Amino acid sequence: MVEHRPTFVTNLECSLTGEVYEADQVHGQSSAGRPLLVRYDLDAMRTQVTRDEIAARPTDLWRWRELLPVRATTDIVSLGEIETPLVPLLKAGGANVLVKDEGRLPTGSFKARGLVMAVAMAKALGITRIAMPTNGNAGAALAAYASRCGIETIVFCPADTPEINVREIAMQGARVWRVNGLIDDCGAIVGEGARQGRWFDFSTLKEPYRIEGKKTMGLELAAQLGWTLPKAIFYPTGGGTGLIGMWKAFAELEALGWIGSERPKMFAVQAAGCAPIVKAFEDGVEHADRWEDAHTVAAGIRVPRAVGDFLILRAVRESGGRALAVSDAAILDAVDDAARQDGLLLCPEGGATLAAYRQALADGLVAAEDSTILFNCATGLKYPMPEAPQALDRHALIDWDAL
Amino acid sequence: MVEHRPTFVTNLECSLTGEVYEADQVHGQSSAGRPLLVRYDLDAMRTQVTRDEIAARPTDLWRWRELLPVRATTDIVSLGEIETPLVPLLKAGGANVLVKDEGRLPTGSFKARGLVMAVAMAKALGITRIAMPTNGNAGAALAAYASRCGIETIVFCPADTPEINVREIAMQGARVWRVNGLIDDCGAIVGEGARQGRWFDFSTLKEPYRIEGKKTMGLELAAQLGWTLPKAIFYPTGGGTGLIGMWKAFAELEALGWIGSERPKMFAVQAAGCAPIVKAFEDGVEHADRWEDAHTVAAGIRVPRAVGDFLILRAVRESGGRALAVSDAAILDAVDDAARQDGLLLCPEGGATLAAYRQALADGLVAAEDSTILFNCATGLKYPMPEAPQALDRHALIDWDAL
Ligand SMILES: Cc1ncc(COP(=O)(O)O)c(C=O)c1O
Ligand SMILES: Cc1ncc(COP(=O)(O)O)c(C=O)c1O
Repeated sequence: MVEHRPTFVTNLECSLTGEVYEADQVHGQSSAGRPLLVRYDLDAMRTQVTRDEIAARPTDLWRWRELLPVRATTDIVSLGEIETPLVPLLKAGGANVLVKDEGRLPTGSFKARGLVMAVAMAKALGITRIAMPTNGNAGAALAAYASRCGIETIVFCPADTPEINVREIAMQGARVWRVNGLIDDCGAIVGEGARQGRWFDFSTLKEPYRIEGKKTMGLELAAQLGWTLPKAIFYPTGGGTGLIGMWKAFAELEALGWIGSERPKMFAVQAAGCAPIVKAFEDGVEHADRWEDAHTVAAGIRVPRAVGDFLILRAVRESGGRALAVSDAAILDAVDDAARQDGLLLCPEGGATLAAYRQALADGLVAAEDSTILFNCATGLKYPMPEAPQALDRHALIDWDAL
Repeated sequence: MVEHRPTFVTNLECSLTGEVYEADQVHGQSSAGRPLLVRYDLDAMRTQVTRDEIAARPTDLWRWRELLPVRATTDIVSLGEIETPLVPLLKAGGANVLVKDEGRLPTGSFKARGLVMAVAMAKALGITRIAMPTNGNAGAALAAYASRCGIETIVFCPADTPEINVREIAMQGARVWRVNGLIDDCGAIVGEGARQGRWFDFSTLKEPYRIEGKKTMGLELAAQLGWTLPKAIFYPTGGGTGLIGMWKAFAELEALGWIGSERPKMFAVQAAGCAPIVKAFEDGVEHADRWEDAHTVAAGIRVPRAVGDFLILRAVRESGGRALAVSDAAILDAVDDAARQDGLLLCPEGGATLAAYRQALADGLVAAEDSTILFNCATGLKYPMPEAPQALDRHALIDWDAL
């Protein structure tokens, strides 16, 4: 189903020091303990493919093949990575607010973008056993793609991860463990097992390819908006891979001459109960301290410490955006409004972006006429919803006026 | 987001008697108490649009605009009705088995296709209050689209409808009631309220437009397969609107000269615990008796009586297909295999199609080399999954070899 295309990967590069690493080798992080980024020969690429050619291809993630790391088409393990739609949020948002509805991807979240890429590369590089810490969605995506191509997976999630996520991971063939701790505690176990040589560590930004998959959110946005970018993007930020990935996508598109130099204001949205990036942003520092006693209904952004903190903060600052924290109450109100008024069931993390947008609008950080994208990173169906207990006895007399 | 296009609706027609009804009027069923079908001026249409033009448009449901009943673009209430992907089911199915993954649609099921159309027509015709019986997914889609455009909705579902469905309906702004009975008991309440003039009855095949939306499954398939059709289609059949809709789509495509006269074998799949269509098929009769004591894990196809029974049976027989019943055990095995082996989490109704395919293959009704489509009509995330209770104490000594 996926066509063969030329690839343009030249090498990998440490995101902190710029140190160069060879492509087509197994890599984790750089020797400086930082994320590795994939680099492409964009000069060669611009002579071989145009944006119009890309726009004319089937609208799935693989249309971006030349900007992705997978070399052999046979390594691609696809579950149907469609282009996600932009859904107007007229009433709960406003006339210029579009939700990028990532819940339509395989396994119901944007984690599919990162994992479809990372698993293809693992397959290409001969990796056979993978472990990962997850707040739920990433583990589900890993399990699905890895099982599909026969790679063994072991997944660790915080004990209070939404029930559906844990079951979904198990259904899809992974071994999954609930750990009495948070995602970085799970990550410590994965790291220790990797050091013992038991498995490959698939933590976000500890392997180089998830970010390349997440990058496609930015590529898609550009194509969907006719090779322009919106004025503002609100992104629910945990590990921040998506935000970093989009920022990388925009730079690559500009280097190709496919977009100009204008950039959206990037808003990194966190929950008030776990806001390390917001604190670092406000303190004007480059790295974030671990957030203690992290808690929020938005499990996906309950990430006390992000290894890519400096990359998130750099993108947000360069863009003229902000890091914003919203309360759980504001998140739940936002989810409720979008569902009731616009018929769009957001996940709590998506609700957080709406709550942050409202706050930013009230504070004058964005204007109502600014074209704005809110990321709904997962289907709302994965999260607990309030009970709806009304029962009707069909054998009794029906009070029609009360229906 | 949706472009203006010419429309070609000429009239409506009773599916039993052929009696003609005027378009652009509020209609329920025909005077014979049967479903009404929308008719188009296909001769005019074939002079004004080509299949290549359609194929070049954005790949959502609205690319089929000329074959749909909505006249004014402003009546369209969209949540992003993307074209659903075809996902190979190599291991649990076979080399020639593709799943049409309808769980990617708004509200997580193919009911969005029917309801996006019916709600647009209700809006166009000035209907302001709608009621509907549902096994869950249809009610969720109705609630989403109706709330989005300010139409009031009252939804009735069997008491044991999956919990997520009921909550989703309520979240999306409908008033929802659990009724101690099955879907036809709920339908009786809706019918009585409609007779009292309290609301418009949106039961499947009791209003003319849901089937036009469901028809797009057949249109999409033809376009996705390069204007050919598969050898076999397995469809989980409750009310049967989708199967009837696809059959209508194929006839219209042939009348347009866009496909030939070959048709897939249509397999209507039901659960052994609720198989009225299978019984009627085997008895060689045109109408099905109500199935008593209906029970199955596949809630969506727990429909004891279908008003379009004769249309389903006619399509299946004309196609050279069959109506097949599968056990709940076979359904759950199929769901499990597809998730574990292929990373694709089917809904139970989707699992039923895989179970039926396996049975048909064993019985020689289809061959392994026949191109085959299985319909997964909803995301598997909406359904109960088995518990995955493994806990790991990070403070205790970890038995690494046991992970
Ligand atoms: C629904 C949802 N939103 C947002 C996030 C945060 O994503 P990122 O790691 O790219 O910051 C996650 C991560 O688990 C998630 O599941
Ligand atoms: C998941 C699922 N599959 C199948 C069906 C049956 O659809 P139809 O009414 O078109 O036969 C339903 C209807 O509720 C459903 O929800």
